[in-house]
Amino acid sequence: MLKVAVIGATGAVGQEFVIGLNKHPWFELVQIASSERSAGKRYIDALRDPNTSLLKWHNKENIPENVREMVLNRVEEINPNKVDLIFTALESEDAKMIEPRMATEVPVISTAAAFRYEDDVPILIPGLNDEHCELLNIQRKNRKWNGFIAPLPNCTTTGMAITLKPLMDEMGLESVFMTSLQALSGAGRSPGVIALDIMDNVIPYIPKEEEKVQVETKKILGKFDGNSIVNASVKVSCTCTRVPVMDGHTETVFAELKKAALPDQVKESMINFSKSVSIRELPSAPQDYIIVHDDPTRPQPRIDREINDGMSTVVGRLRKDTVFKNGIKYVLLTHNEKMGSAKGAILLAELFKSKKII
Amino acid sequence: MLKVAVIGATGAVGQEFVIGLNKHPWFELVQIASSERSAGKRYIDALRDPNTSLLKWHNKENIPENVREMVLNRVEEINPNKVDLIFTALESEDAKMIEPRMATEVPVISTAAAFRYEDDVPILIPGLNDEHCELLNIQRKNRKWNGFIAPLPNCTTTGMAITLKPLMDEMGLESVFMTSLQALSGAGRSPGVIALDIMDNVIPYIPKEEEKVQVETKKILGKFDGNSIVNASVKVSCTCTRVPVMDGHTETVFAELKKAALPDQVKESMINFSKSVSIRELPSAPQDYIIVHDDPTRPQPRIDREINDGMSTVVGRLRKDTVFKNGIKYVLLTHNEKMGSAKGAILLAELFKSKKII
Amino acid sequence: MLKVAVIGATGAVGQEFVIGLNKHPWFELVQIASSERSAGKRYIDALRDPNTSLLKWHNKENIPENVREMVLNRVEEINPNKVDLIFTALESEDAKMIEPRMATEVPVISTAAAFRYEDDVPILIPGLNDEHCELLNIQRKNRKWNGFIAPLPNCTTTGMAITLKPLMDEMGLESVFMTSLQALSGAGRSPGVIALDIMDNVIPYIPKEEEKVQVETKKILGKFDGNSIVNASVKVSCTCTRVPVMDGHTETVFAELKKAALPDQVKESMINFSKSVSIRELPSAPQDYIIVHDDPTRPQPRIDREINDGMSTVVGRLRKDTVFKNGIKYVLLTHNEKMGSAKGAILLAELFKSKKII
Amino acid sequence: MLKVAVIGATGAVGQEFVIGLNKHPWFELVQIASSERSAGKRYIDALRDPNTSLLKWHNKENIPENVREMVLNRVEEINPNKVDLIFTALESEDAKMIEPRMATEVPVISTAAAFRYEDDVPILIPGLNDEHCELLNIQRKNRKWNGFIAPLPNCTTTGMAITLKPLMDEMGLESVFMTSLQALSGAGRSPGVIALDIMDNVIPYIPKEEEKVQVETKKILGKFDGNSIVNASVKVSCTCTRVPVMDGHTETVFAELKKAALPDQVKESMINFSKSVSIRELPSAPQDYIIVHDDPTRPQPRIDREINDGMSTVVGRLRKDTVFKNGIKYVLLTHNEKMGSAKGAILLAELFKSKKII
Repeated sequence: MLKVAVIGATGAVGQEFVIGLNKHPWFELVQIASSERSAGKRYIDALRDPNTSLLKWHNKENIPENVREMVLNRVEEINPNKVDLIFTALESEDAKMIEPRMATEVPVISTAAAFRYEDDVPILIPGLNDEHCELLNIQRKNRKWNGFIAPLPNCTTTGMAITLKPLMDEMGLESVFMTSLQALSGAGRSPGVIALDIMDNVIPYIPKEEEKVQVETKKILGKFDGNSIVNASVKVSCTCTRVPVMDGHTETVFAELKKAALPDQVKESMINFSKSVSIRELPSAPQDYIIVHDDPTRPQPRIDREINDGMSTVVGRLRKDTVFKNGIKYVLLTHNEKMGSAKGAILLAELFKSKKII
Repeated sequence: MLKVAVIGATGAVGQEFVIGLNKHPWFELVQIASSERSAGKRYIDALRDPNTSLLKWHNKENIPENVREMVLNRVEEINPNKVDLIFTALESEDAKMIEPRMATEVPVISTAAAFRYEDDVPILIPGLNDEHCELLNIQRKNRKWNGFIAPLPNCTTTGMAITLKPLMDEMGLESVFMTSLQALSGAGRSPGVIALDIMDNVIPYIPKEEEKVQVETKKILGKFDGNSIVNASVKVSCTCTRVPVMDGHTETVFAELKKAALPDQVKESMINFSKSVSIRELPSAPQDYIIVHDDPTRPQPRIDREINDGMSTVVGRLRKDTVFKNGIKYVLLTHNEKMGSAKGAILLAELFKSKKII
Repeated sequence: MLKVAVIGATGAVGQEFVIGLNKHPWFELVQIASSERSAGKRYIDALRDPNTSLLKWHNKENIPENVREMVLNRVEEINPNKVDLIFTALESEDAKMIEPRMATEVPVISTAAAFRYEDDVPILIPGLNDEHCELLNIQRKNRKWNGFIAPLPNCTTTGMAITLKPLMDEMGLESVFMTSLQALSGAGRSPGVIALDIMDNVIPYIPKEEEKVQVETKKILGKFDGNSIVNASVKVSCTCTRVPVMDGHTETVFAELKKAALPDQVKESMINFSKSVSIRELPSAPQDYIIVHDDPTRPQPRIDREINDGMSTVVGRLRKDTVFKNGIKYVLLTHNEKMGSAKGAILLAELFKSKKII
Repeated sequence: MLKVAVIGATGAVGQEFVIGLNKHPWFELVQIASSERSAGKRYIDALRDPNTSLLKWHNKENIPENVREMVLNRVEEINPNKVDLIFTALESEDAKMIEPRMATEVPVISTAAAFRYEDDVPILIPGLNDEHCELLNIQRKNRKWNGFIAPLPNCTTTGMAITLKPLMDEMGLESVFMTSLQALSGAGRSPGVIALDIMDNVIPYIPKEEEKVQVETKKILGKFDGNSIVNASVKVSCTCTRVPVMDGHTETVFAELKKAALPDQVKESMINFSKSVSIRELPSAPQDYIIVHDDPTRPQPRIDREINDGMSTVVGRLRKDTVFKNGIKYVLLTHNEKMGSAKGAILLAELFKSKKII
């Protein structure tokens, strides 16, 4: 069993780490840390909102028994020498300070954007661009760290990159237009989206989100040339919106392929990719990496987000596009707090262990 | 005062007709008709749901006093000779039967799709393609009717066509990708969208909607050549979704222009178009045909849909696109039951009267 | 294995029957029936809405494989001689016609109100008033039926009656004021609550609901004297409202006891009752019949409704009342489609089998 | 014109003050103050959330032009000598510090709970207990203040007290059970209710709310005996819940009268009280102080909350109670941010001016 710590354990993503690590066959959660304000409190007490008395725990599963009473450390109290791996769920500004300090000693898997765009840092989606892991060695040498920082992409990037990968491999990919209809939980919980802002409403703007998705997609779909990642040449344009949905980002995609392909061929390429995906034997891997529905009313976030515990990317409405020469369009759903965040990070840790990177 | 009738007066769109015609300076509502089931009832009684006792009236304004007690006719009882104009709010199948019967005697303004795609039928948006009105004369002759059928577009088409028109005129338009986040009221009320289907959810499919928008946009933006309408050459691709919002369709647009234009130039072209729009003096015209926000968090349906009583198209997030060579992207909001439907139809009637078409 | 049929299998409650009977250790679903309109169709096809293309299946669990393809019978085609038990999920008017026809041959467990208020018909909540089962023998004799009709109470009655029972037994019960905040699924799905009626809203009226709860509670809490049920003398007054919640009825209760009791004593009486409840060994029984929270923010419908698969009644905010002399007040949550409906009916069938009534 | 200041001008209630005072015939808003964090900013800038870029302005009406650019003072910068009246919209802890400091010089109308329960402080609802205003003179003498503190009740108390007053006067009042279904805006906006906490949910607990309503109702309905207020002898018990509704508190009331009265008599007493209410000629007074619906589906918050700009209390479902000897039950709706808060405070100021108290 590898010993792991979670920094930022009380927030939305942190809670998903706590659940995802519960009774994990390979990892044991031994330390949790949170902000100054919560340090020294029991986990359960730190989750209680002092104004409303509400327990800020938003999951179907209960708080694991062994974590309920665990005392939250200050970040400074986390001793990287006593753990084999650290998961972080931090705001970008905090990540910039904290993650390098930890990475000098121990591998860090991060859900923050702070280091995603640096040259010696890959953005990893387990099963998609495993060969980018090699960049971590270069990072270690560069920075003279014992550990490394391995960030996941933004939760809105994940599902789109997963569905584009088989298209790029089989037909080639010219350009992509994407509109996201993002869930509330993607905005976290401190405080997250206020009910009065989103009820009976759409918010057509999520600061910095579009730029992240546009940049990250090219890097994730890029090639590692032995020294660095060469971005994929695909052009990407996004509009990101927030809708009154609890969990699960819905995205409409219009993709221009290099080679013509019928919807059925695209479906087949997704299914084939899904069946042979590298991570399929890992403990947190879903039964299906990609699910493709023929029912035109799917995917729907409330119905489809919990399939395979939120680790599948669900596709529907695959059909010919009417603008692009070799165009295809579809709708996808990705669980922003599972595959798109904490549980995807745990799956990445499993990949690292299976590849003996940790 | 012209005497008008509304057929389909109890449904969502019909109710908006009743409100829009209340104390209208030019039109007097003298007859209302509805389905077999409601015929012979007072308007107020026909709106009462027998199972839940709920009054199916979903508007901020009360039922106009003079309409409350009006008795609903059967459609057959509407005598086209006693009115100067008929507004219809019918399902497509019913429209196919009823509208031609009426149009033999009197002009019909229709919110149904039944005749939109016929060669001698224009799809009219007042202020946008007024010159297409001339096709109505050809229609009359063709069909040997005293009246004519003048349909509005689908409510999802309206806002997009309005915002594209100044771009097409000034910069030229190659292609458009649009994703709609449509409101519940667009699905009508018999029964309309079921709460259990849409709460905490997105439905990624609205049957036939995308095809309508794609076809109608080209016709509306097309040119009348003296005999018929030559579709605009712009290519259009849509994905239409339903979101948990009461009123107001939000649409994300990615548009490829023929000539490069900065976002500020695009904004200016929209504002200029808005200021000089033909219908600006008509009674139901909004103060602003198009509103363009610099605040990136706008438009929001709950906040912006009732501006100018739902008759303005509201634009925001105007910015350079990252895929197209001369691309621009933006978000728009259109009130699906006001400018996009009944009140847009009344504005069209006002245009007809001002042009002496009725 | 007993062979069972479900009449009304496509509606909200019918779907819960299909799920609750899936892989049941004692019961095998062999026939399903539905309305005229659906008869002859496969189950999966009958669930598809022809207008919206949506599959009207609103459950986390998928349609059981063996039921997907089952063909729906017309009600007349159900042969009571070929089954050991029939579950019905019918509107009251239909139940009045169909249930007696079935009951002449075979026991019927009904979720409809049609026969609840007849003298020789008990209203049964498994675990609460099992001794009322004896009235079924009298019913059989009276009506010269081989079977019988055993109705469950209204879903709003169930949770309240369950929490009042231990209070009545231990402290005696004078009177009860209850306000319900009922979920959407309680209104069924044909069509059920329209989104435009309930979003951002409360509907303060559910036709006939209050009368049902007031009458049923007294009968359920009454005593069987060997011939008939003598209603409990408790007075009950309710106000029933609908709120924008998918599943789970929340109810606020103010109860006047005959003997003074501290909140802790009331809690203890509920817990004790729960621990020794008669049905605790049956396959569909929950681990806890009643759960009592000390956390004042519970129960919450979204968080608590699925505990023990919706078969527990969840209580919170137990505190002294400030009006009644010996008053207590609390909030309860009951899953209207599980313990309050189909799965409660299956639990009742299990009770019948364990008592050799079927 | 009297010069007024608003302290706490950026919050939910503060915004309603800004709207209610816009173009007011008697009052001119000359100073606004807010927390340390916002001091020195223009009003419009202080409303912008730095994380989401959203403008935290949640009203149908736009920010009044003259207030948009007004600079927010620190509370210390408010000079009570330069205004005739101060409105405060503060958290209770802040009110305790700030309000007495202001009241030494100038009258303060407060929406906070800080001073409501002190012996020389009346809780005023304009039109209901105007004679309690005399206690303000005693307060002035006691405390040697030039001004005074006049608090409004909690927004949940207001509507209930208004509807109980005519019953108490005509039939006498023994006891009341009330369950509230409270709107989101009642929880303010810093941050207010988080969407993830309330979507598809009910929160059955609002800290301290029930105690406030229970205590305040007795004081408001009490008699001023020349020296102090003698609480009404009515007993009150409440359960307060939060529901996913934007504005408008719905309350179910079960009331025991001293004398029997038919629902129609109760209705008549409410209507008569409403017609002759003292404040009916004041600028902010509603056309109807109380509205009583016969339609059993009313009041509904979304439909009824904006009637008379939120200043009417709307009653429905008036019917005989089935528990109390002389019982009546009904449902009421009160707008928590209009009559129940800022605009009610402005109405109170108008009453003061008309009585020459200010």
